[in-house]
Amino acid sequence: MNPDLRKERESASFHTEALIHILDGGAEKTRRRREIEALALNDPELQHEDLNFLSRSERYDMAVKKSALMVRKIREHAISNPEEIMWFKSYVHRWRPEPLDLHLGMFLPTILNQATPEQQDRFFMPAWNLQIIGTYAQTEMGHGSFIRGLETTATYDPSTQEFVLNSPTVTSIKWWPGGLGKTSNHAIVLAQLYTQGQCKGLHAFIVPIRKMGTHEPLPGVVVGDIGPKFGYDEVDNGYLKLENVRVPRENMLMRYAKVMPDGTYMKPPSDKLTYGTMVFIRSMIVGDSARALSQACTIAIRYSAVRHQSELKPGDPEPQILDYQTQQYKLFPLLVTAYAFRFVGSFMREMYHRITGDMNDGDYSQLPELHALSAGLKAFTSWVASAGIEECRMSCGGHGYSRSSGLPDIYVTFSPSCTYEGENTVMMLQTARYLFKSYTQAKSGQKLSGTVSYLNDLCSHIQPQQVASRPMMNINDISRLVEAYQLRAANLVEAAARNYRMELGRRKNKEEAWNSTSIDLVRASGAHCHYVVVKLFAAKLSEITDAAIHDVLNTLCLMYVLYGISKNSGDFLHAGILSDPQISQVHQRVKELLAVIRPNAVALVDAFDYPDAVLASVLGRYDGNVYEHMFEWAKKSPLNKTEVHKSFYKYLKPLQSKL
Amino acid sequence: MNPDLRKERESASFHTEALIHILDGGAEKTRRRREIEALALNDPELQHEDLNFLSRSERYDMAVKKSALMVRKIREHAISNPEEIMWFKSYVHRWRPEPLDLHLGMFLPTILNQATPEQQDRFFMPAWNLQIIGTYAQTEMGHGSFIRGLETTATYDPSTQEFVLNSPTVTSIKWWPGGLGKTSNHAIVLAQLYTQGQCKGLHAFIVPIRKMGTHEPLPGVVVGDIGPKFGYDEVDNGYLKLENVRVPRENMLMRYAKVMPDGTYMKPPSDKLTYGTMVFIRSMIVGDSARALSQACTIAIRYSAVRHQSELKPGDPEPQILDYQTQQYKLFPLLVTAYAFRFVGSFMREMYHRITGDMNDGDYSQLPELHALSAGLKAFTSWVASAGIEECRMSCGGHGYSRSSGLPDIYVTFSPSCTYEGENTVMMLQTARYLFKSYTQAKSGQKLSGTVSYLNDLCSHIQPQQVASRPMMNINDISRLVEAYQLRAANLVEAAARNYRMELGRRKNKEEAWNSTSIDLVRASGAHCHYVVVKLFAAKLSEITDAAIHDVLNTLCLMYVLYGISKNSGDFLHAGILSDPQISQVHQRVKELLAVIRPNAVALVDAFDYPDAVLASVLGRYDGNVYEHMFEWAKKSPLNKTEVHKSFYKYLKPLQSKL
Repeated sequence: MNPDLRKERESASFHTEALIHILDGGAEKTRRRREIEALALNDPELQHEDLNFLSRSERYDMAVKKSALMVRKIREHAISNPEEIMWFKSYVHRWRPEPLDLHLGMFLPTILNQATPEQQDRFFMPAWNLQIIGTYAQTEMGHGSFIRGLETTATYDPSTQEFVLNSPTVTSIKWWPGGLGKTSNHAIVLAQLYTQGQCKGLHAFIVPIRKMGTHEPLPGVVVGDIGPKFGYDEVDNGYLKLENVRVPRENMLMRYAKVMPDGTYMKPPSDKLTYGTMVFIRSMIVGDSARALSQACTIAIRYSAVRHQSELKPGDPEPQILDYQTQQYKLFPLLVTAYAFRFVGSFMREMYHRITGDMNDGDYSQLPELHALSAGLKAFTSWVASAGIEECRMSCGGHGYSRSSGLPDIYVTFSPSCTYEGENTVMMLQTARYLFKSYTQAKSGQKLSGTVSYLNDLCSHIQPQQVASRPMMNINDISRLVEAYQLRAANLVEAAARNYRMELGRRKNKEEAWNSTSIDLVRASGAHCHYVVVKLFAAKLSEITDAAIHDVLNTLCLMYVLYGISKNSGDFLHAGILSDPQISQVHQRVKELLAVIRPNAVALVDAFDYPDAVLASVLGRYDGNVYEHMFEWAKKSPLNKTEVHKSFYKYLKPLQSKL
Repeated sequence: MNPDLRKERESASFHTEALIHILDGGAEKTRRRREIEALALNDPELQHEDLNFLSRSERYDMAVKKSALMVRKIREHAISNPEEIMWFKSYVHRWRPEPLDLHLGMFLPTILNQATPEQQDRFFMPAWNLQIIGTYAQTEMGHGSFIRGLETTATYDPSTQEFVLNSPTVTSIKWWPGGLGKTSNHAIVLAQLYTQGQCKGLHAFIVPIRKMGTHEPLPGVVVGDIGPKFGYDEVDNGYLKLENVRVPRENMLMRYAKVMPDGTYMKPPSDKLTYGTMVFIRSMIVGDSARALSQACTIAIRYSAVRHQSELKPGDPEPQILDYQTQQYKLFPLLVTAYAFRFVGSFMREMYHRITGDMNDGDYSQLPELHALSAGLKAFTSWVASAGIEECRMSCGGHGYSRSSGLPDIYVTFSPSCTYEGENTVMMLQTARYLFKSYTQAKSGQKLSGTVSYLNDLCSHIQPQQVASRPMMNINDISRLVEAYQLRAANLVEAAARNYRMELGRRKNKEEAWNSTSIDLVRASGAHCHYVVVKLFAAKLSEITDAAIHDVLNTLCLMYVLYGISKNSGDFLHAGILSDPQISQVHQRVKELLAVIRPNAVALVDAFDYPDAVLASVLGRYDGNVYEHMFEWAKKSPLNKTEVHKSFYKYLKPLQSKL
């Protein structure tokens, strides 16, 4: 092992393994996770070449191969717990997207949730066995998440008891669904249902698109790959154009809404029932933000401990770049953010399961809060993580640009989270709508509960100024700082509401006023989410019994909280929440905390416990032997297959001899 | 043309063509630039397939082909003015990096500046004719810009009058130089010179690396491509390992330093002489930041005028997404930044030429300011532009992830500017050193001139508070706002100096104190650069005589200035430069200005005058016919060459039949 990394690990103030158990949720969970990790990573059939040297077609090919093997092996290893299936899948594909993602994550769950028992009999087992491979086709070329805008039609023909599906325009072509281009033979198509001459809105239809056996597109189906993207080389995101494609009446998912043989339409009992999957996936993205950011931090921090550059004192040996304050300032705030998001991710997963449990018992009361929180935190965490991964990459200097660093891939693989499952700004505005509604309720005397309960105080005449006016506020008291975040959020919600009223006074209607306040509303949502993260991180500390780990996590939490204040000092000053001298203290304390975190930095990323095969990074290797492996890696570059590239003979040699 | 775009263009308040002339520096310049553009873009020999569908080897091949043709055609068209050569090169390669970049931009200039007349005779014309193709090999695998850390050695052997070059370690392998891997047959190698048993520091040597005629690597030379990167697919960034490679004494570049036949070393007359190229390239990056950001803005703003999504009022048609305040808030600050950087880029180019003129007359007095300003502005503008390109990309929703948008390529092509030619944080600290030195001089009574002259005021007891205390400060008065930026910079320079003194009081030595203050120093540099940009933008306004254009540029400038304040409100509040109510006014005014800019947004990006062939973006097409072309583009995806991908037969069909 690289001596720098050994030294770093030896000097940590806590047991890394103990922290791993905390992050996993217990020693037994760690053991089982590693068991599954070993099943995937040590399986000779699941090995593959370095992706960076493969063409896109080869990468897709490799991914299909592994996905097919994965389904077989899940059965062989008798892995049945959903979380464990997820682990196995992630280790097989090293946390990369794959062609069956939508089959497993959208097609199968939609069948389970929205199909009738008869439909489940017909589709579920063939799909589970990959005879039917499906995708979920909602987005169109000209239309995103706005349901009313979708143009694909499904017109019921009672004479044959079939639906006739059409893509009437170029903009109505289904666009983006993963696995649609080449892999799937079925698609759940979201289309405007027309029956008895009336449009009944968006409904889901199971549409066979390729012939069983030959996999050729069926008549009337124009299907293909949408072409190269920023990353996602393993996935055949596709297009689908439907030209009078007929499916039997029984292929509309009819657990809730129904079309009778004569074409009579029956409404679903509730429109809340479609919330579920979306909220689930958004909640998962919060955890995935933590995952992606912590992988990037692992690579950047290990490399910064190995890399020596420049000089601190003339004549001294070149120091580890992790000893530069500016490098610490780039990486440690991201490290503490990764920890914060990890805890928030667990919270969201638990909240989701708790509230879906309530919903199964008929209690929908918590759904609006879950909906608002999953939307806002999805946006908040994915934005921060996405930008943070790039900061990690750039902190590695030139080598961060090499694909051998693994960082470009983490970025392009994660960044789409900012857009899919709800574009982040749209998400922030959904959360804002909830905040605004809660604020209005509080104003009218209703008592709020849950994460928005702080809005009650706004209306009970407790003024924000009170915190700053206590002159002895201790800048290390996390609970007082959480209060400061609460006041900031309350202040920005109130400011947005005030601006909205002002716009209403100036303009014609509510919608225009809302649009003209939307910057303020997004800011308020951001502050609310930031407060929730801070609060959850602080709350987590009380659960930690290991004294050494409590100590280090307390430092991380304090750093997260103070760094957030220093980066948004205007909000805290503007509202009178913190005073000028307090802000100066915060800036100073952030610098001090960098030095406190420094000796534990490597152990803190080791605790994320990503094996080298997952990181796929020469810079982030556990053993720190960066340079030898970078040279070996480079030699494999396809351009090195011949000493002299053919372009020399074609273009340069003729030119040189002509002159 | 798309009717939305036509309407946008018709409603602009100014003549786009007139603004193009201003940006180009006159109507005649526009004419000539377009003439050269047409020579490159209309030449049938210089056409090429869509890069997105080519393998890396094919992209490299295509680039070599175009580079070889380019050299011939520059001669044929008798283009000789350096700026016009640059235009031609840029249009041929559509502003993408290419294998001859270092040959043209580093190898040839270094020969011109550092070779003796005899060496120029020997190398210049063969290099100009591409018989010699060279690169510039400084960076090593384990060492970046820190000169003392470089390990490659060149040991003089007086018995044969040769230098013996060696890469003694893995970390000493030359790494990254463009064109090194496959294209070049020569390299200027930077190595530690040893003669008569002593190390004389870093010197430059012309080293043949491949055999003329066959292009095979020469004995002792291990050379190759460093493998795939985040972008730069057309460039063969390379590695070079030297094993007792001998070059004649006359291959050391000896215009300044010399080694005599007996090994006697003669020092260069001044060490300032190597500054030149570096400063030039940094100055150029400022303009390139404007270029990259303005291309991204062109794509995102045109697409936002074409794309309709969601609803503002229930039941109304879906509005252009450019009508959403949140979309304007993403794009218009970037648009005004692109304009700001454009003017700053021109200023830097002029400043560079003025000061090198002075230097040729023996006047080096302005060099430190040029050095500091080019370093800081390189970092400031490239960071902002790099992040801004990604914001543009994400503002295009899902389609921003498609390579057909052109945005991923702009990002990966531009982003390395943050690292090469001086890593940005290192650059900021260089500027900080100049600011700190200037501050110390002012404190000791010296009168400063140039961009730092505002530091004089700090020492003449004019307090920052004075601006805020004038209660009627007009938030639309740009000159007063420039003053506010000046005070912010002064305040942060002073704070950094104060913190440095405090650290000195606590710690042992200057270097540690500097490191412990470096976050503050980088902040101070950033504020200084921000002030310079604001000041230059404001100054530009006075040159504009066209009233309609003056009006719109005044709005853009005001937006740039106020947006910067709103995003850094903490700095302005903390220093007492602006008051709480003023900050509220600023937030409000920014929102109002979005609406003012809205009708001119498309014309403002049209004025950047990038032809479709350069943007290479389906989303950014001038005619706005986005969707039809996106479908045509997707059909060309290599995965669509067969209806059924071979992975189906290999993996899925066997699995399906087994079950």
